[in-house]
Amino acid sequence: MRRICRPGKGVVVGIGDDAAAVEMDGQCIVATTDMLISKQHFPPGTSPEQMGRKAVAVNLSDLAAMGASPLGLLFSVGLPRDLDVELVERIVRGMDRAAREYGTSVVGGDIDESDEIVIAGAAFGSCRKERLMRRSGARPGDILAVTGSLGAASAGLSILLGKKPAGGYRALTKAQLDPVPRIREGIALAGTGAVTSAIDITDSLASNLWQIARESGVRIVLEADKLPVHPLVLKYAEDAGMDPMEFALFGGEDLELLLTLRPDRIDRAFRALRRIGTALTPIGRVERGRGALVEKSGRIMRLPDRGYEHFR
Amino acid sequence: MRRICRPGKGVVVGIGDDAAAVEMDGQCIVATTDMLISKQHFPPGTSPEQMGRKAVAVNLSDLAAMGASPLGLLFSVGLPRDLDVELVERIVRGMDRAAREYGTSVVGGDIDESDEIVIAGAAFGSCRKERLMRRSGARPGDILAVTGSLGAASAGLSILLGKKPAGGYRALTKAQLDPVPRIREGIALAGTGAVTSAIDITDSLASNLWQIARESGVRIVLEADKLPVHPLVLKYAEDAGMDPMEFALFGGEDLELLLTLRPDRIDRAFRALRRIGTALTPIGRVERGRGALVEKSGRIMRLPDRGYEHFR
Repeated sequence: MRRICRPGKGVVVGIGDDAAAVEMDGQCIVATTDMLISKQHFPPGTSPEQMGRKAVAVNLSDLAAMGASPLGLLFSVGLPRDLDVELVERIVRGMDRAAREYGTSVVGGDIDESDEIVIAGAAFGSCRKERLMRRSGARPGDILAVTGSLGAASAGLSILLGKKPAGGYRALTKAQLDPVPRIREGIALAGTGAVTSAIDITDSLASNLWQIARESGVRIVLEADKLPVHPLVLKYAEDAGMDPMEFALFGGEDLELLLTLRPDRIDRAFRALRRIGTALTPIGRVERGRGALVEKSGRIMRLPDRGYEHFR
Repeated sequence: MRRICRPGKGVVVGIGDDAAAVEMDGQCIVATTDMLISKQHFPPGTSPEQMGRKAVAVNLSDLAAMGASPLGLLFSVGLPRDLDVELVERIVRGMDRAAREYGTSVVGGDIDESDEIVIAGAAFGSCRKERLMRRSGARPGDILAVTGSLGAASAGLSILLGKKPAGGYRALTKAQLDPVPRIREGIALAGTGAVTSAIDITDSLASNLWQIARESGVRIVLEADKLPVHPLVLKYAEDAGMDPMEFALFGGEDLELLLTLRPDRIDRAFRALRRIGTALTPIGRVERGRGALVEKSGRIMRLPDRGYEHFR
């Protein structure tokens, strides 16, 4: 779409970032759309409420990655004709509750008949133009950092797909079924002036990192030993005889914010997230050059650009 | 959705109107979403470009009905895996061109895999709060009016479904395949201060009229003899042995604006549309009471509340 669609009047950020931004009276209206389709995005065991909640979360997460404050959400929902009315209401109730938890509301909707469950969401919000966080601003010398912890959503998916028993891993399945967008964190970080680029982790840490490197025209070195892998992911991986790095690096949907920070203002970013109570961990550095590398136990190699594959 | 979703902070118009409006710094951000699904919304003969154009038109039409100026469009597109790449590009090219024709642009998108072609659009724009046109403001004494002409889109659908030969009726099939949203008309009308309520005709003149009557708590009398039925619809109906009123009253998707106007300012509305070169026709009156009636050759009866049914 990016190659074909030409940005019009007032467009500050067009196709190719987490969300678009259009200028209006000195403010930017930030808007995004994300579609969830049952077979791809709702693993077995997803409740109707969780479908609605997840649709809210993925759309708000795009606003978070831009540093925008949400103003409202809209949903176009396609549902099979034979779907129970009660189930539809539960989806909508999930949307409504999740929206309010993040300080906004569902302001519009359209329900249609379709072969499979399709929830297309759109979120819009506002941000001061100079605060907008984009994918393209990383500069050599910046520090790479990530909010929260990594790998929980994809380990949760692995559990839900029945690869291993779920006992004791509820936090992981919850991370997959009911992910949390970093709305407050995004707004706070945008206000620090420390962030040079940002993206939310939807595809995978690896491929979202590649996107920042590509959009910014820099080389980014990920320091693997510093990754804040979710503690239960470490335990689960050991139980299951799997590599926890597979989840942390190549699993998607954690909705954490991946950021590059100006070294001279990095303290402001840490202070801002400490106030919210969310971890912020330095996990690498930005250098002159191109591409994304991973440093592990002193060795540096190319980071594979692969990520989350829909489970269908 | 309306019953379940509670409007949040700043919401001026929530679910239940053509679009939502949220206040921001004295301006309103107006936003809407509309989903088109191949089997229901794209009759046989729809080109990929027309699919893209129609998705733009239906979303912009909702902004038009509110009196908003568009700022941008976003699309989530679900496509079957085996769909030709060239076809996808043609859909997107149709979106891009149509958006620019109406003075805006496609600023965001998300392409996913789905069983059938699904195009979920969202449009956002701005409007001064006091200019917003809603469905709920009609008052006894107001004049009912409609832009343009009626029946073309549904007569076009009848032709495309092969009920009758298409020779000489290209304007009708075009009205179905490539409908025109009344963006300039909506903005101009909102500026006159004459409009007390507005809606775009998507379901049918009859059911959209019922919506205004219901939302405004008034009785509306439609004067059938005044309806600006599209001249080719009259001809086609005669050729086909059908009732032209069936198309004009109960056919959908004309995307004309149906309005109620303050009698003391009605001249401003006519002048505004004359400047644009679009017809505005008085077609009835608002009275004390409830519901929608139709007056034909001196007889008054209840207007059936039925409309466009998807052709699937």
